[in-house]
Amino acid sequence: MTDLPFDIGSLHDAYAGGLTPRQVVETALARLAAADDPGIFIHLADRDALLAQADALGGFDPARLAAMPLWGIPCAVKDNIDVAGMPTTAACPDYAYLPERDSTAVARLRAAGALVLGKTNLDQFATGLVGLRSPYPIPRNAVDPALVPGGSSSGSAVAVARGIASFALGTDTAGSGRIPAGLNNIVGLKPTVGAISAAGVVPACRTLDCVSVFALTVDDAWAAFAAMAAADPADPYSKSVAVPAAPARPAALTVGVPAPADQRFFGDGDMGACYAAALEALAGLGCRVVELPFADFYATADLLYEGAWVAERYAAIDGFIADHEDALHPVTRTIIGGARKLSAVDAFKGLYALQGYRAKLAPVLASVDLLCLPTAPTHYTVAEVEAEPIATNSRLGTYTNFVNLLDMCGMAVPAGSRADGRPFSLTLLAPAGQDALCAGLARDIHRAGGCTLGGTDWAQPDGAIPAGADPAAGEQIELVVFG
Amino acid sequence: MTDLPFDIGSLHDAYAGGLTPRQVVETALARLAAADDPGIFIHLADRDALLAQADALGGFDPARLAAMPLWGIPCAVKDNIDVAGMPTTAACPDYAYLPERDSTAVARLRAAGALVLGKTNLDQFATGLVGLRSPYPIPRNAVDPALVPGGSSSGSAVAVARGIASFALGTDTAGSGRIPAGLNNIVGLKPTVGAISAAGVVPACRTLDCVSVFALTVDDAWAAFAAMAAADPADPYSKSVAVPAAPARPAALTVGVPAPADQRFFGDGDMGACYAAALEALAGLGCRVVELPFADFYATADLLYEGAWVAERYAAIDGFIADHEDALHPVTRTIIGGARKLSAVDAFKGLYALQGYRAKLAPVLASVDLLCLPTAPTHYTVAEVEAEPIATNSRLGTYTNFVNLLDMCGMAVPAGSRADGRPFSLTLLAPAGQDALCAGLARDIHRAGGCTLGGTDWAQPDGAIPAGADPAAGEQIELVVFG
Repeated sequence: MTDLPFDIGSLHDAYAGGLTPRQVVETALARLAAADDPGIFIHLADRDALLAQADALGGFDPARLAAMPLWGIPCAVKDNIDVAGMPTTAACPDYAYLPERDSTAVARLRAAGALVLGKTNLDQFATGLVGLRSPYPIPRNAVDPALVPGGSSSGSAVAVARGIASFALGTDTAGSGRIPAGLNNIVGLKPTVGAISAAGVVPACRTLDCVSVFALTVDDAWAAFAAMAAADPADPYSKSVAVPAAPARPAALTVGVPAPADQRFFGDGDMGACYAAALEALAGLGCRVVELPFADFYATADLLYEGAWVAERYAAIDGFIADHEDALHPVTRTIIGGARKLSAVDAFKGLYALQGYRAKLAPVLASVDLLCLPTAPTHYTVAEVEAEPIATNSRLGTYTNFVNLLDMCGMAVPAGSRADGRPFSLTLLAPAGQDALCAGLARDIHRAGGCTLGGTDWAQPDGAIPAGADPAAGEQIELVVFG
Repeated sequence: MTDLPFDIGSLHDAYAGGLTPRQVVETALARLAAADDPGIFIHLADRDALLAQADALGGFDPARLAAMPLWGIPCAVKDNIDVAGMPTTAACPDYAYLPERDSTAVARLRAAGALVLGKTNLDQFATGLVGLRSPYPIPRNAVDPALVPGGSSSGSAVAVARGIASFALGTDTAGSGRIPAGLNNIVGLKPTVGAISAAGVVPACRTLDCVSVFALTVDDAWAAFAAMAAADPADPYSKSVAVPAAPARPAALTVGVPAPADQRFFGDGDMGACYAAALEALAGLGCRVVELPFADFYATADLLYEGAWVAERYAAIDGFIADHEDALHPVTRTIIGGARKLSAVDAFKGLYALQGYRAKLAPVLASVDLLCLPTAPTHYTVAEVEAEPIATNSRLGTYTNFVNLLDMCGMAVPAGSRADGRPFSLTLLAPAGQDALCAGLARDIHRAGGCTLGGTDWAQPDGAIPAGADPAAGEQIELVVFG
């Protein structure tokens, strides 16, 4: 049983065959022990309480899956999202508080039958894309321990990639739900802003924050997303978004990509080659690739940390930082402290600049169905990030920082391995509300690639080339790019 | 000819009868001279150039009205809106510049055949609702010279109310397009934010600013609005809004009003009595009145000057104010200078508070078709405002300040006279995009009341009770409330 893949379909099949939720929880905890990585979780659920919750689910009944689509599914929750009875630290121990109530997202997961294993590590206050900005031990990348785990949702991504949790919640303001997915060979669903309530989540930038989902497959990420997505009076930024039962896409799609001159890989030839091959392979999935100028996307991205939005990070913790500045991670303190010199005039000028880019980019985005980008432009090792903590982090956000500012949704999806064996990930992006479109194409890319799941050797539950694809092109994908 | 009403229909009828645009311009200038009010215009068009423009229109041809619906119609433009070749002062002489190009709004008016008489006085930098915050002479209220003219679009409202211009452009951030309309017995159309481009307009609060229209009748305001409304790449906040050829409303409407305990008249019994009677009379127009709690609307309004939005006013002129603070009107300097103490954190906290109110009020607004409010809660004389310049101004904004923050559109419409002979005005408000709905009900209210136009003794061009109305109730309206 310790080899049982933890994708939702495999677990439900196993439940149908007599497996119990208690056994799944024990397996999850055994895998965590075997991983020997004290950096993944900041807080684990009390073992007896968790087993009692598992037992309380009773016997498996497939008829209950309509109402409880996550019945008996183990998940992990980033430690800036409240789970009743577990401390919320946001990776800052002095900030910790004990919430009495679940966040709305977690409450909806539990109502759908999920079991919360614990709270996962993160870049402190969700500020970072590297996963090293935490006072806790750093989670090890599940694919290549030399690489950073990615952040800010480091522990959640690693927990899924190691097969400990079937899925995990992250948050995503600048890429925190996509970069760690890309670095750990799993799926990262970054919903439309507001699609999942942020009530009970420690804010990073309240106007931009999303609760996100890490999973082994697109279908699993979608199932968790669908269980959570709903407008919530407790979060004024939440809103109703169309969530069909399954990801869906038209057979033919127009896919925007950065013009070659605007592609940024910071000298990483492997990443550039993989991306070029991936775009070639998209034709086999019915996609027409259109090159777009990308300077305005990058300029939008620059607003996030160079503009006034850092003040949102300060606003989120201003009562705390006033008295506990020394409690912050040094890098986090440097970044968030930068907000002190920003005036309200700066903030509004930032909003004007953003509106300018939104207006300029609206017709560009309207000219395609979605964008297909590298999730990250290059990989960094732990040593490289430690040597240059801010610049490396910024570069990792090349293809992610502009997304929430432009009110887009997206999904990071494994698209094969590089020549050096490190993971290669694509991110699909579309305007707000098009979550199902991104997931639909991501699903086909993932299946076409047929790569194993996360850091495990598990095959995809259904590795078949999708029905609509050209078999020859599918073959090419598998061999040349995604394979 | 000097008695010719300047509503658009009357002018076009007169043109059909042989009147020339040159004669209309001469009449307008003669009326301005007769008004003997140096406070209305800051800058008048060069007489010869204006007459040449009038002559250049050629002979009247009704077939051209489809393409040029404002053919030969004299208008005035608030002096924070660029007209090529006329200085833009924003009522701050030291700030003045000479634009080479028309603002988008003015360019569209001219393309539709309108003739620009000149630039009108305003509360400096469009900051104020009283009309007294200008270094130029103060325009006299066209109905009762003891009253303030209202602002910030003081000169535009008075120019229309005196029959000098058929319509005039204002701007409206906090009520500047509605309060002066109410105080001068004319119509004030405050469009959906972005419906008319703000390119070439001196900003007040860029995220909230609207170009607005003053006119003698709803149909005239609508005609000018329809000529200007269009998305404009030069204004990132502009957007396409549905603009039917004529205002339209369903026969039956649900109209929200403040619950009696939430109505604010600051001791002005006349205003309260007029409002109560007006709500009674709405039944005759097919409206069902629903009382709503109004505390959250007022709390939203408080954000505009007590929250961070003052920083937008500072941002609009920060290059100027740094070196020319002494050039500002003392009251304006006090208000806008307040932005200096506001941080970017304050700005974002303001945005969060606003989003909170938007979310709370969304179901309230969804429960009705539109709101019907007093345009202002009370009247103030020039002497009263001079004695207490900020508090009186704030009170005037009771029913206007929240509107743009909540992304609503609206129209102020004359609804009769008070017992003391001062004007009584209603404002209709609806969510963004419902401009035609507001105008449709406003038109019926105006016609039902049958009051004369502005400060003139001109009858409405079509004073008939609308077809759908209950004749008995209509009678009651005319006698008791609107008459």
